[in-house]
Amino acid sequence: MNDTKALLEQFFKKDKRALARIITLVENQVPACCEILDALYPNTGHALRIGITGPPGAGKSTLVDQLAKHFRQQNKTVGIIAVDPTSPFTGGALLGDRVRMCDLSGDEGVFIRSMATRGSLGGLSQRTQQVADVLDAYGKDIVMMETVGVGQSELDIVETADTTVVVLVPESGDSIQAMKAGLMEIADIFVVNKSDREGADRTLLEIQSILTLKEQNQEWKIPVCKTIASENQGTSELAGHIEMHTRFLDEHNLFVTKRIRRLRKVVTDMVAIKLQQLFWTHDKRKMMDQMEDALFKGTFSPYQATQRLFADFLT
Amino acid sequence: MNDTKALLEQFFKKDKRALARIITLVENQVPACCEILDALYPNTGHALRIGITGPPGAGKSTLVDQLAKHFRQQNKTVGIIAVDPTSPFTGGALLGDRVRMCDLSGDEGVFIRSMATRGSLGGLSQRTQQVADVLDAYGKDIVMMETVGVGQSELDIVETADTTVVVLVPESGDSIQAMKAGLMEIADIFVVNKSDREGADRTLLEIQSILTLKEQNQEWKIPVCKTIASENQGTSELAGHIEMHTRFLDEHNLFVTKRIRRLRKVVTDMVAIKLQQLFWTHDKRKMMDQMEDALFKGTFSPYQATQRLFADFLT
Repeated sequence: MNDTKALLEQFFKKDKRALARIITLVENQVPACCEILDALYPNTGHALRIGITGPPGAGKSTLVDQLAKHFRQQNKTVGIIAVDPTSPFTGGALLGDRVRMCDLSGDEGVFIRSMATRGSLGGLSQRTQQVADVLDAYGKDIVMMETVGVGQSELDIVETADTTVVVLVPESGDSIQAMKAGLMEIADIFVVNKSDREGADRTLLEIQSILTLKEQNQEWKIPVCKTIASENQGTSELAGHIEMHTRFLDEHNLFVTKRIRRLRKVVTDMVAIKLQQLFWTHDKRKMMDQMEDALFKGTFSPYQATQRLFADFLT
Repeated sequence: MNDTKALLEQFFKKDKRALARIITLVENQVPACCEILDALYPNTGHALRIGITGPPGAGKSTLVDQLAKHFRQQNKTVGIIAVDPTSPFTGGALLGDRVRMCDLSGDEGVFIRSMATRGSLGGLSQRTQQVADVLDAYGKDIVMMETVGVGQSELDIVETADTTVVVLVPESGDSIQAMKAGLMEIADIFVVNKSDREGADRTLLEIQSILTLKEQNQEWKIPVCKTIASENQGTSELAGHIEMHTRFLDEHNLFVTKRIRRLRKVVTDMVAIKLQQLFWTHDKRKMMDQMEDALFKGTFSPYQATQRLFADFLT
């Protein structure tokens, strides 16, 4: 208890080690984590949250780095959350993104954290949002969340962002695949990265023609821009589009809508977890183990097993 | 009630329309769905469940079709569940996979269903497993579940399979990306599809060398095979590996383990849904709406809001 208080004090004094420590506690979903987040919420709501997503190998990490450098030149502080599919061999996030960090790690204004996708408690999108809240409360002006965008939980993450950037590369059928993966639905801005590659203009046209098919029932016209992140080309144009989208959200009062949606999600996620904790007592888990055999033999069905588990619950 | 009974009767008479109808009910998670699944469970546990996954564009659909044809030649009946990221434009699963079906749709022994990933009730992996249970109870010998394998919920799906096939294509860094996406962890068999492309042998070697890094603490040696699905090359070799894996599971009593794990998951999923239903009464939802403003203003935190919601629950 006192440890937590001391830690929070350090955090609000902008101690970078306290920040890292708190993020680790949130990632591991320790019991104190609720108390900590609770203390932080009043300070959230100031950071711009940018979600960056796209297929594997689209160059998202490099693009995020270039954007971070760009924002730093404008004297904005930056937090980066790289949602990193866990390697089965190391048990942790992969080295690739850790190596990348070196480039920015000398800069006190940038904080980068890789998050593993597997083997941890709580939903991935929930944990990511909580880490974003921590970075927000710490005072970061920009929080970037980078994910591989072909999966439900990954899409959930970027949907909590204020601005979502979808990164594609010039490859045959890539834009069609992106459409299939539901990426067209969530993009506020499109990027064709590695645009020195053959077919870049065709990919750009493809995306634009798909976008014209989409009902444009809102005033924001989704831009498509070309970058070569590895050579830092197109980054400022992209940053300009992000800025325009920020203005758009502001003018249409959409920051409020997005923030309320996020807060509601935090509550419903907490409710779901608390319900599980209340339900799965030692006795209930034992009961479940004992029913295993009957389930397998078909003596009773999963539905009947569920009813048995609920027999003395809420009565 | 009587409708459900009549429907089930038709189903057990192997009426294909009753099968389609029941799958739709399960997909939409209608209330009768529990009763239906309950009636089916005693008949499940006979089908071999194959999960097929890989990055977008790896040619999974074509490969699944070729495998289906192969199994049909052995006089086995086949069910295919294609988990299909929803298009934002049609609101349903994409046409691409529907078109594909034509090739097999004349065959009474094959049943194909595309499942949308978004906008539906219940977890995706839960619904997919339930549809697999329906196909299993119907008497299908083989149930193939095809997903884009770069996302937590998609990985959850294939983990409920008996045999998991991971499909890659010869492209620079693809195997590394697969490792990043956690695919190496779940593969029982690897396929390098489109193996007439340049770099196929290198990709094969890459996978093999990554596999040697992996602790091989079980007796199953993960095979890597080459296919050109579009020309039906390598399909029977792949089918041979699947058969060998089936024998391996059988000899080591692993079908039992996998089936028990699936049944337990069905129960815990049902519990989670029932808890949500019990909790989110009309009053609680109203309470949540009323707290929105206070949450936004920071008058109280999400944690405090959660506690308020639980105030009269279980006391």
